[in-house]
Order: sequence, then structure tokens, then C-alpha cells
Amino acid sequence: MDQRPIGVFDSGLGGLTAVHSLWRILPEEDLIYFGDTARVPYGSRSREAILKYARQDVRFLRSFDLKAILIACGTVTTTSLAALQAENDLPMVGVVEPTCRRAVLMTQNKRVGLIATAASVRSGAYEAALRRLDPEVTVFSRACPLFVPLAEAGRIRRGDVVIETVAREYLTPLKNAGVDTLILGCTHYPLLTDVIGDVMGPGVELVSAGEESAFELKRMLKARELRADERRRGETEFYVSDRVEDFERTASLFLQEDLRHTARRIDIERY
Amino acid sequence: MDQRPIGVFDSGLGGLTAVHSLWRILPEEDLIYFGDTARVPYGSRSREAILKYARQDVRFLRSFDLKAILIACGTVTTTSLAALQAENDLPMVGVVEPTCRRAVLMTQNKRVGLIATAASVRSGAYEAALRRLDPEVTVFSRACPLFVPLAEAGRIRRGDVVIETVAREYLTPLKNAGVDTLILGCTHYPLLTDVIGDVMGPGVELVSAGEESAFELKRMLKARELRADERRRGETEFYVSDRVEDFERTASLFLQEDLRHTARRIDIERY
Repeated sequence: MDQRPIGVFDSGLGGLTAVHSLWRILPEEDLIYFGDTARVPYGSRSREAILKYARQDVRFLRSFDLKAILIACGTVTTTSLAALQAENDLPMVGVVEPTCRRAVLMTQNKRVGLIATAASVRSGAYEAALRRLDPEVTVFSRACPLFVPLAEAGRIRRGDVVIETVAREYLTPLKNAGVDTLILGCTHYPLLTDVIGDVMGPGVELVSAGEESAFELKRMLKARELRADERRRGETEFYVSDRVEDFERTASLFLQEDLRHTARRIDIERY
Repeated sequence: MDQRPIGVFDSGLGGLTAVHSLWRILPEEDLIYFGDTARVPYGSRSREAILKYARQDVRFLRSFDLKAILIACGTVTTTSLAALQAENDLPMVGVVEPTCRRAVLMTQNKRVGLIATAASVRSGAYEAALRRLDPEVTVFSRACPLFVPLAEAGRIRRGDVVIETVAREYLTPLKNAGVDTLILGCTHYPLLTDVIGDVMGPGVELVSAGEESAFELKRMLKARELRADERRRGETEFYVSDRVEDFERTASLFLQEDLRHTARRIDIERY
């Protein structure tokens, strides 16, 4: 047993969808969440910029004595996971591998869709993982650059013509390609599950990055005997890199429950 | 006469609308443009974060021997202009003062609308300038957080239900308040002139921040005898802080002409 906390980070607040899953799947674990709200969004940036930011995020989290890190960010995982793992002597779980494993299990017709940020799609990381897991899978991918700003603005509901129009434009080519499984390759996108599901129709399975990585983390902790005492109830601390005033309202959106926590602000560029 | 270049900067590419005006109004001047594309958007960040970024932007520009700086960014002007002016011994023009002077000249019914980023609206800088110029003016202001990401995604055209719906939601309260003048308080917004004009109707004058600050810069250079030789033709150099691959295409959108220039990339966090 190991009571040390797990570090979780994202470019912003999208990674809270993974925290939501962790609270359900690993309720006994302590979590330290960092959201880089001063530099969100990462998904439109270059690979070098993202790697630099991700290294600072990890250095901040490692100022705590952690037992593992969950990279709850599609963009960081696709561009920087290998480098971060090589540089750090603690277990790190990203979102790509577990999500692709699930997608390969789900698909019947071997046609898998991927939606993610521009940086993630450019990286080709999801495609590479899917082909490694099943060489017969055909991947249809599409960058959705407006999904993060629209989700952070709370435009996530059915009947909102703005998000519905943008979703239809992004997703119709994937639907027409006949995919039966769609990877939501960015931890912001589970907020858009209703809208995305309406466009794709009932025949298409949605696989959410945050959720699958939470299960993967549980398996990893179990295998390495790093789990906390299951009789305890874990605590979560929240840190952000910009103003905390709007944190509670926006975080409640991602966590799908009223938040009793507040966030503390840190200067990420000092790390 | 003074042939030294003028520095122009913005959080991203919105400030190119001011460059577009400068090319017309001061064609003989050399310009050095910096767009902080690695850290755009500033408008959703805190005042401290914006001031820190703006100081780095000015330090980079001052690595050239400049005669003046145009802050082609509503968010930097509203939050940081006074601090930057106090710290720098060269003339700096922002977008607030010239824009408000124009708005006060245009309004007949003394009801002026302001649209800008969240940080600009929070700062109260436009309201303060308008009241100083004319204490009888009533200001109706509204933050429009989705306008920057939508404009940068090229969603600026009439008939696009996404930008038209968002514009109608943001602007209807201002229209209902009976404003006869609307300040576009962010240098990205001139791209949305058609869409904004359609919602506000023909009775409302639109005052664009980039355009007015270019006129103000011309007056200032003339008064201080800093203008370049009017027979020459100026050159513009472009610098950005993130990948240059998409620069040409996106910049053409803001400059409303095909760009023959490329941008060079610099590491802004070293300044």
C-alpha cells in the first residue's frame, strides 16, 4: 500500500473529466490536480512549445512526493509522453494507449474515427497506436480546434445552434466514412458527448480519453502494489496557473457536480 | 526625419488589422510586428499575467532600435499601458484613448457600446477614458470571449450561423440599450465588421480600435518630428512566438491581402 498522492495535469480544466472518473474508480486515492490555465489552450501550439510547458507542469507536480502521474491531456500525451517518461523515474499514464486499446476492442468494422486538437492530429500518435494494436484498423481523423474554446465557454448543450453547427461540420466527414467507433482524443470533449452522439447516431460508440486512462491507472497501481488503503477516502487539491476567481464555476461544469473545493494559484514559469 | 522602425505588437494576429491601417496611413514607415502566438489569447488571463507577457513583448521589440511602439492590442492597453509607459523611454500609443476620442465625436445620443475581451471589460479602462472625455456619456459594455477564437478560425462571414448566433447573443443587449456608437475594443474584431454591423443595424457607427490608433500614431510622429521620408516605401518584418507554418494563411485574413512576407519565430520567454 502506498498513500502518496497521484499527480494529474492538463493544459486547462479539461483534465477534470479524468478527475471525475478517478473519483469514481479510485475513491481512496489522494489527487493533486494542476491545470495550466495561464497558457491554455496547448492544442494550437507547436510540439516544442508543448513539450516545454509539459516539462514545467511535471516539475511543479513533482514538488509533491507523488507515486504516479496521470497526463490527463491528449495534446501532451501525443506530443510529449515518451520524452517525459524518459526523463522521470515515476510511472506516468497518458491517454492515447488506453483509449486506443478500448477503441480496438469496440470496433466491429475496423473503421475508427479520431477527433482531437490540431497538435494531436498532426502528431499521428493515435493512428500509430491504433495500427500497432490492430494493423487492419483504418483511422479517419479530424482536428476540432473550436471544441475547446466552445466547451470552456459552456456551449455544450443540445439545441445550441452554435455547438451543433460546428459539431456537424467537423463530424459529418467521419460519419460519412462509416466509422463505428469514435475516439474523443481530448479530455475536454466528453462535455460534448450529447452533441457528438446526436451527429454520429446510435450506431457509433464514443470512447472517452479521460475515462480509459483512469482505468489504466488503476490497473497499473494494482500491478505495482501502489494502491492506497481502500477503506480511506481520498482528498483532491487543485492548482491553476492563472486567476482562481472563475475556477469553481467552470470546474463544476467539467466535474458534473458542485465543487466545494477552491484552487490555489502558482507561477508555473518558475518551474 | 527619423528612419528608425516602429514596433507593433499584439497577443496574436489581431494586431495585423492595425498594420493594415498603418500601411495605408503611413506607407513610408518601417514596421517590426510581433504576435505572441505561443500565448494567445491574452483576453481571458489575469491582469498580472498580461502585464508580465506585455513586458516581455516590449523587451523583444526593443532589441531593435525603435522610434515608437504601437500597442495593437486592446487587452494589453487596458491592463498594462500605464506601467509600460512608466518603464520605457520611448513613445507608446495604445488603442483605448484614440478609440474613445473618436467614439465621443461620433455619438449623438451619448449612449456608447463597448465590446472587448473579458480582461479589457474587467479593467474598466474604456469606460474611464470615455467618461473623462465626456462625463455625459453612458457606456454599455459586454465581454465577447468567443470572438477571438472564432475570428482566428476564419468564421467571419455573413451567413455563417455560428458567428451570427454568437454575435446576436453578445450584441442584442447593446442594441436594445439604444447605443448609436459601438467600440470594437479588440483588434481582432474588425474582421467581424459585416456580422456586427448586421446585428447592430445601419443607425449604429462602429469605431475600430486598430484604425484609430494608427491615426493617433501618425499625429504623434508628426508632432515630435519623427516621421520617415515620405518618398520612401517602408518594409515590414513579422515575428511570432510559435510555429510559422500557418502564419501566411492566417495573416492574409487579417491584412485583407495576399502576403508575400513570411514570419520568423523567436522564443519570447527568453526576453
